[in-house]
Amino acid sequence: MDPSLKLRIAVDAMGGDFAPVNEVAGSLAALRETNNAFEVLLVGKEQELREQLQKAHAEGLSCSIVPATEVITMEDSPTAALKQKKDSSLAVGIRLHQEGKADAFVSAGNTGAVLSATTLILGRIKGVSRPTIGTFLPAEGGLCLLVDAGTNVDCRPRQLFEFAIMGSIYYSLVTKKERPTVALLNVGEEKGKGTEVVIEAFKMLEASNLNFVGNVEGRDILKKKADVVVCDGFVGNIILKFGESIPGFLKGRLTRFADEGIIRKLIVGLAKGSLKNALKDFDPNVEGGVPVLGANGISIIGHGSSTPTGIKNMILRGVEVAQFQLHKHIEKALSASLSIEQTELSATAGEYKGE
Amino acid sequence: MDPSLKLRIAVDAMGGDFAPVNEVAGSLAALRETNNAFEVLLVGKEQELREQLQKAHAEGLSCSIVPATEVITMEDSPTAALKQKKDSSLAVGIRLHQEGKADAFVSAGNTGAVLSATTLILGRIKGVSRPTIGTFLPAEGGLCLLVDAGTNVDCRPRQLFEFAIMGSIYYSLVTKKERPTVALLNVGEEKGKGTEVVIEAFKMLEASNLNFVGNVEGRDILKKKADVVVCDGFVGNIILKFGESIPGFLKGRLTRFADEGIIRKLIVGLAKGSLKNALKDFDPNVEGGVPVLGANGISIIGHGSSTPTGIKNMILRGVEVAQFQLHKHIEKALSASLSIEQTELSATAGEYKGE
Repeated sequence: MDPSLKLRIAVDAMGGDFAPVNEVAGSLAALRETNNAFEVLLVGKEQELREQLQKAHAEGLSCSIVPATEVITMEDSPTAALKQKKDSSLAVGIRLHQEGKADAFVSAGNTGAVLSATTLILGRIKGVSRPTIGTFLPAEGGLCLLVDAGTNVDCRPRQLFEFAIMGSIYYSLVTKKERPTVALLNVGEEKGKGTEVVIEAFKMLEASNLNFVGNVEGRDILKKKADVVVCDGFVGNIILKFGESIPGFLKGRLTRFADEGIIRKLIVGLAKGSLKNALKDFDPNVEGGVPVLGANGISIIGHGSSTPTGIKNMILRGVEVAQFQLHKHIEKALSASLSIEQTELSATAGEYKGE
Repeated sequence: MDPSLKLRIAVDAMGGDFAPVNEVAGSLAALRETNNAFEVLLVGKEQELREQLQKAHAEGLSCSIVPATEVITMEDSPTAALKQKKDSSLAVGIRLHQEGKADAFVSAGNTGAVLSATTLILGRIKGVSRPTIGTFLPAEGGLCLLVDAGTNVDCRPRQLFEFAIMGSIYYSLVTKKERPTVALLNVGEEKGKGTEVVIEAFKMLEASNLNFVGNVEGRDILKKKADVVVCDGFVGNIILKFGESIPGFLKGRLTRFADEGIIRKLIVGLAKGSLKNALKDFDPNVEGGVPVLGANGISIIGHGSSTPTGIKNMILRGVEVAQFQLHKHIEKALSASLSIEQTELSATAGEYKGE
């Protein structure tokens, strides 16, 4: 990558729930905000995109179209869609990056399909068993990265160990904090607690050069006892979805409480407003998107329902990750950890019954 | 059990964080409320209990003391404590039940120790791999039972299947609903989603005569898509503790929001009050206690910090479970399911890699 050249971000313009409208609007907002600091390659149906750009007065912005005739929808099965729709905006976009014609790829489309295409087309970094994604939670006193956020349900200890390394590097990039604290999500703080997999992962993390602080419990996530909290994707998915359901649940509870009189109704109206305000940074559009950690390249996944601001932030995250060359840092850290702990790891892997 | 005789409930009077004060107060409240409908055997240090009873004016209440000289504390290691403290209120109380001198045992003491002592002294019901406990959550439109709530971290498919049977029977007892709906907690609704263990458990549940409604996701727990939600104790523990942390987290958020002006402060004060009211049935003292499902007898575990009301409700739960003879119903259901599915189960168990 020549630093004198502008970075080129391939945007899956057909991916999200409100594509291509929000994708185009978000791209242009990102370019306006940064004064054309990079280039956007909008990948998708040429005619539609041309119309959108015209409507949005895109003149003077460093934005161009790369045609792709097909669209992978949210309902498509990830693997089948990739086989059947060879000319999808998703596949064309990732291939642009793989061929060196773009420096990063971003998409608010079908998460499973983006993950599959990323792993298939870009490949994995050496030493990574399975790519993963993490999610930032706005905890007390700062961000907490929960990783794996739902990608890999059955994990071996080695995978949790890799999530910790990759999560730690990504956390440093986003928050600028060196040597973030890393913890294992568990049912108790003491060493030796938890499932066989977690007990083995604990040993690996303890022997690593990460800033490992031991186990944390479910109640510690939002208290931010650690910067990076590691779990398998089964637990991560369930916790995140449980958490997502809570604002709606509280709203329902408050509404029922408000039914018992006009004064209560008034108070509850105010309460809902202040709750909404107090929780506004839980909006996924603030984060924009998350990189596929462990992929041999840069692929950012956004929320399907991203607003133009969400798309803008996803693109800016792509620029940041591309400038930093996240995958190169992960590769370096993993190869270092592999060479240091080769003997130890293979010994531990042999011990683990599930292998 | 002669129905003409009063039920006798052995209460671990030294177990909880505020023992024996709350234990005695709760016992007497239960007897007053039911007009001495049963007997309480307070198990613990004789002199201390005698003093408490005197202070509390227990005359005329069907309450007596069974001496036990030792106390297992919250800090004690469950297995070590049971070996070292042979005359603990916990061990003496469970033995009373095992010997037929009490019809149920209840304790707000060290959960691990109560579980161990229950399994050790009362034994398991035939067909139960490992006893479990579930927890009721006040979901939208009624109670949801989450089982396992943290007892067994590494579970085989067969165990999840047993949790479903036992949880279903217990749910019916508490809510009087026949054939409650049962679901597996998973990362997606479709069959075939999730870990190998969960996929196998799905097949067993599908083939059972339970009212199995398939998979539910983390977001469905509080929406009550099913009456009984089955998971392993690793996931159950983490979700429950994560959920417990949310009121405190919201309070912190609201306080920070309130810092930005006097009007906001006022609104937030009102908001906190209505939130507290709207969530008051999340207080574990309402439920009182939960039975050890799968034990060959009746042992109820309460929250360590139980108030006198919590202790009272734990005792009344003990009476209810003893009247119903929960363990006999579980035994019957499990032996029926075992005989019907013997062939199928052994085939499935062989398929499962982790076995």
